[in-house]
Amino acid sequence: MTSPEQIQLENIAESDYEIFALLKQRYSPRTFKDVRIKKQHLNQLFEAARWSPSSNNIQPWRFIYAEKNSEAYEKIISCLSDFNKEWAVNAPLLMLTAYHEKTNDHQDNFHALHDLGFAVGNMTTQAQYMGIALHQMAGLDWKKIEKIFNIPEDYHISTAIALGYYGGELNKLSPELQKAELQERQRIDQSQFAFMDEWKAIKHDED
Amino acid sequence: MTSPEQIQLENIAESDYEIFALLKQRYSPRTFKDVRIKKQHLNQLFEAARWSPSSNNIQPWRFIYAEKNSEAYEKIISCLSDFNKEWAVNAPLLMLTAYHEKTNDHQDNFHALHDLGFAVGNMTTQAQYMGIALHQMAGLDWKKIEKIFNIPEDYHISTAIALGYYGGELNKLSPELQKAELQERQRIDQSQFAFMDEWKAIKHDED
Repeated sequence: MTSPEQIQLENIAESDYEIFALLKQRYSPRTFKDVRIKKQHLNQLFEAARWSPSSNNIQPWRFIYAEKNSEAYEKIISCLSDFNKEWAVNAPLLMLTAYHEKTNDHQDNFHALHDLGFAVGNMTTQAQYMGIALHQMAGLDWKKIEKIFNIPEDYHISTAIALGYYGGELNKLSPELQKAELQERQRIDQSQFAFMDEWKAIKHDED
Repeated sequence: MTSPEQIQLENIAESDYEIFALLKQRYSPRTFKDVRIKKQHLNQLFEAARWSPSSNNIQPWRFIYAEKNSEAYEKIISCLSDFNKEWAVNAPLLMLTAYHEKTNDHQDNFHALHDLGFAVGNMTTQAQYMGIALHQMAGLDWKKIEKIFNIPEDYHISTAIALGYYGGELNKLSPELQKAELQERQRIDQSQFAFMDEWKAIKHDED
């Protein structure tokens, strides 16, 4: 069996330029160590999100979290896509992310979703520092979540996140997902997304 | 005069829980060292963005960057709000951020803006590691930008970013902005945005 350490090492990004270790080592596993997230660690994760920048310092990010074996955890599971349901149950903690759609003077805050993403990025870096992995999920029924969690009108659900310490056992996953877990990570080249002075027509556009 | 080092130290977040140094030390200055960003450093910034996670690995983030004393730099300046114009000229490099609004099969990608924010977060952490500050700006004329930079229809502008090495001279700023630069950073408490098991009604909602 592949050891947890090997899983993590095999998933290091094949980066073209050297990047900071916590960013290089980060990936999104579907299996986690079967251990509760420490309260102190959870507070550190939220603290990392808290100090993110945001448009006019509005801090639009909101999180609902639930530990395994709680009613709220089961409610979150019930709102995930069938594909995500299969492996997300491996996580000791699940989170829902939401954002406030309005500014302090009740205008639309276009950047709220961007600022939520930034905050989750900071949380992920802090998590990586503590050996915690975040796997973000877009596949969920947000209407169902907003209903069963009574999300206020001016807020909107973005993602669910499965959290746990790195080092889960591969054999908790189906053969297909085991294969996915060890697959090389792929990214488009910098030339496809970073343009000097002007927009460049890229292959992606001609699809 | 306050030395650059003091500026940086005075702006360290007063965090309630210990967080990773690069997240704690980050802030958004309005003055930068008067030095070009090294090409290698710029590539490392984009590489950090490149390895961010995104919904279905679509990687919707796009960046246009321009160095001071270029036509493109002046074009970006011309699209900023008057308030941002005043100080953004201190930056040796300006960036525009954009995102692809569609999935690979031409559906709306709701999470694209979130994923751009995450990528900019990773870029900011990488920058902090190299002593580079990013100051993000929401105050801009995106319609003008999309027009003068010929942004394709399926892409949308999100923010502009001023980039430079930390350690700019305070006296490049107006007295008001000098004061802002040294102001204590403020954030809402964790109890206002991180909820266990269920949504909590918070003061912010009753405004």
